[in-house]
Amino acid sequence: MPNDRSGAEASRRRFLGATLGLAGAGVAGKAAAAPTTQPSASDVPEWMQHQGAPVLSPPYGVPSPSEAKVVRRARSRGPLPTAASSVTPLQDLHGIITPSGLHFERHHAGVPQIDPARHRLMVHGLVRRPLIFSMEELARFPSVSRIHFIECSGNSAWAEPPATATVQDIHGLISCSEWTGPLLSTVLAEAGVEPSAAWLLAEGADAAALTRSIPMAKALDDAILAYAQNGERLRPEQGYPLRLVLPGFEGNMSVKWLRRLKVGDQPFQTREETSKYTDLMPDGRARQFTFVMEAKSVITSPSGGQRLGDRGFYEISGLAWSGRGRIARVEVSADGGSSWSEAVLQAPVLDKCLTRFRAPWRWEGAPCELRSRATDDTGYVQPDREALVEARGLNSGYHYNAVQAWRVAADGTVSHAA
Amino acid sequence: MPNDRSGAEASRRRFLGATLGLAGAGVAGKAAAAPTTQPSASDVPEWMQHQGAPVLSPPYGVPSPSEAKVVRRARSRGPLPTAASSVTPLQDLHGIITPSGLHFERHHAGVPQIDPARHRLMVHGLVRRPLIFSMEELARFPSVSRIHFIECSGNSAWAEPPATATVQDIHGLISCSEWTGPLLSTVLAEAGVEPSAAWLLAEGADAAALTRSIPMAKALDDAILAYAQNGERLRPEQGYPLRLVLPGFEGNMSVKWLRRLKVGDQPFQTREETSKYTDLMPDGRARQFTFVMEAKSVITSPSGGQRLGDRGFYEISGLAWSGRGRIARVEVSADGGSSWSEAVLQAPVLDKCLTRFRAPWRWEGAPCELRSRATDDTGYVQPDREALVEARGLNSGYHYNAVQAWRVAADGTVSHAA
Repeated sequence: MPNDRSGAEASRRRFLGATLGLAGAGVAGKAAAAPTTQPSASDVPEWMQHQGAPVLSPPYGVPSPSEAKVVRRARSRGPLPTAASSVTPLQDLHGIITPSGLHFERHHAGVPQIDPARHRLMVHGLVRRPLIFSMEELARFPSVSRIHFIECSGNSAWAEPPATATVQDIHGLISCSEWTGPLLSTVLAEAGVEPSAAWLLAEGADAAALTRSIPMAKALDDAILAYAQNGERLRPEQGYPLRLVLPGFEGNMSVKWLRRLKVGDQPFQTREETSKYTDLMPDGRARQFTFVMEAKSVITSPSGGQRLGDRGFYEISGLAWSGRGRIARVEVSADGGSSWSEAVLQAPVLDKCLTRFRAPWRWEGAPCELRSRATDDTGYVQPDREALVEARGLNSGYHYNAVQAWRVAADGTVSHAA
Repeated sequence: MPNDRSGAEASRRRFLGATLGLAGAGVAGKAAAAPTTQPSASDVPEWMQHQGAPVLSPPYGVPSPSEAKVVRRARSRGPLPTAASSVTPLQDLHGIITPSGLHFERHHAGVPQIDPARHRLMVHGLVRRPLIFSMEELARFPSVSRIHFIECSGNSAWAEPPATATVQDIHGLISCSEWTGPLLSTVLAEAGVEPSAAWLLAEGADAAALTRSIPMAKALDDAILAYAQNGERLRPEQGYPLRLVLPGFEGNMSVKWLRRLKVGDQPFQTREETSKYTDLMPDGRARQFTFVMEAKSVITSPSGGQRLGDRGFYEISGLAWSGRGRIARVEVSADGGSSWSEAVLQAPVLDKCLTRFRAPWRWEGAPCELRSRATDDTGYVQPDREALVEARGLNSGYHYNAVQAWRVAADGTVSHAA
């Protein structure tokens, strides 16, 4: 598979000469790349006039001090700072990997500090051989490494955000990492699942002992017992030393600090699936066990709170994902949804993984509205807000995946378009 | 393309029942996964008995204190600590992404602390329009995101390492990141390269003003002007705010802190390509402009300094790469090279990118020797040490890519096999 040559070539050709797909945009580039001054090599900056910092300062590296504003931020206040969430700065990120230090957080009782040497995973219930594993034992199983997103089911807003909201504020409860560990199916095979088994209870080793019921079909499909994230061992906020990763399912089911798996023949009806994480419908009934995060996309550049400079060429860039599989297509509109143009998808386009999309665009200096719309490989098309609210009402706090619109004002400021 | 289902399925099937490819190994798994005690839910660890740390502690996350030993380490002392290198802890890593904080370092005059608002890139020489770009202007170009390794040409050793050497000591001058930025070809098109142009000089904004000559064919192929690494802006040690990335070429040519590109009609014969980074051959002549890092592989687990516990099932895991394209095949031997078995390659297998390979193995408790051997999609096969030294002699300090052998002793200790 090409790393992404064809997509990049197509993008470059469009940029450098051919017609652009977006309505009203012409051939561009020179304005974007205009020289600020004529060349001169005479000014040698002060950082070239003395030796820099030695190696290993520090042994585990950190970002430049100039990037200090690129951090997670609080999303909403819960009853306690340990039952709260923080959001990923999507507007400042590139590609598809989320740096582990910027992965969103959602905790129900804070981040436990676990001694990995004493942590255990118990597998019991409807199994032939109940088992307890140390981390060392789990690491001896055959493993996989896969790049998957995790999105909180509460990401994005049924209630209209303020016009000043950023993409971090609205969409920051999603991140994407390379996860490594044995497939859950490998470990369950070791315990020997009984024929009557249909559900699995997963329990975390935090003070909430967060528990969720997982259908056995998902457990035997692509679930991972992850001990590593983006190359290194999990970060504490993502479940160190062991997290269940259920690709495409709502984030809270990817139970962090995983300590126990109990096999049963029906769902366990835990607090998190009776009083929480259900979708209240317009008729007053609640949908339960709505696991999959449906297809969604958002433009991250330009996005809320940013400001365009000169008129001229810009690359529209954003992220698309689907809990059901791969992204098949992303369309972009620069006129509030009247006309749409197909964006280039950055390869590799992976299963249940963020996909970066890009579209060339020329801003003429007039007010306009930018939107993106994702289609996944099941044929599902991301809905607009009206259609989603019509179907689901406004009572739910979860699974909002409508098209996001950003308004560009004449002065270049970008804001959330209600 | 499947994320990697087929490979993982194959691995799992082999693990769970079928015959193993490696000589002498039988069906395994139970020994690896044996319970340490019978299950009991009675012991609730202390970290479940009180609330954990709140969100945003800290806003930019860091690894668990239990992972404090997973850091870069000094490789060799140069004349100054600013002209030195540090190595990536490959034995502790998983998957293919290197956490940015653990990316190897090789500096010639330390790490400059550059103000991104004042940093400029000049493009001049044989171009129709000499140009100077600010970082803001460069960010407006169409961009790509690609996962590529960078390997120092001095990685691995022509001189035999001590038996106690780890994979970090021997192979740690390689790392792999998702790089984002415009293709160099896009920016060169903006300046308008003259027909006589054949080479490019790239200069860094460190106190060494490190310069290298780059063939125009490479510049117009897949070279990236990278401003981002693994999702966020570059780390200072990898060239913040701008680095040239030349996929598959020796690492020093991916000039960090990039400030200048001069187009010419012949190589510039800089210090780094006359006195350094040439390969001294047995007959006393030197090969110059040996850019490409040839196919190579190494087993990272088990590897030097580690110790196997009980006999039984282990997953052999390692990394393979080629500066010429994709990895086509990795073979593993557990008997010092007498017999070989094909490893499973973790998908996606990308161009000029690390590829994780895995092979099931059963250690019977006897001394043995583990080796891996990579073949890339040009058909090139990684040589063994004897063949490489026969062809190239022992005068060079660069481009060593022979098969690495690890010796497993009867007590399970693993060491470099000379």
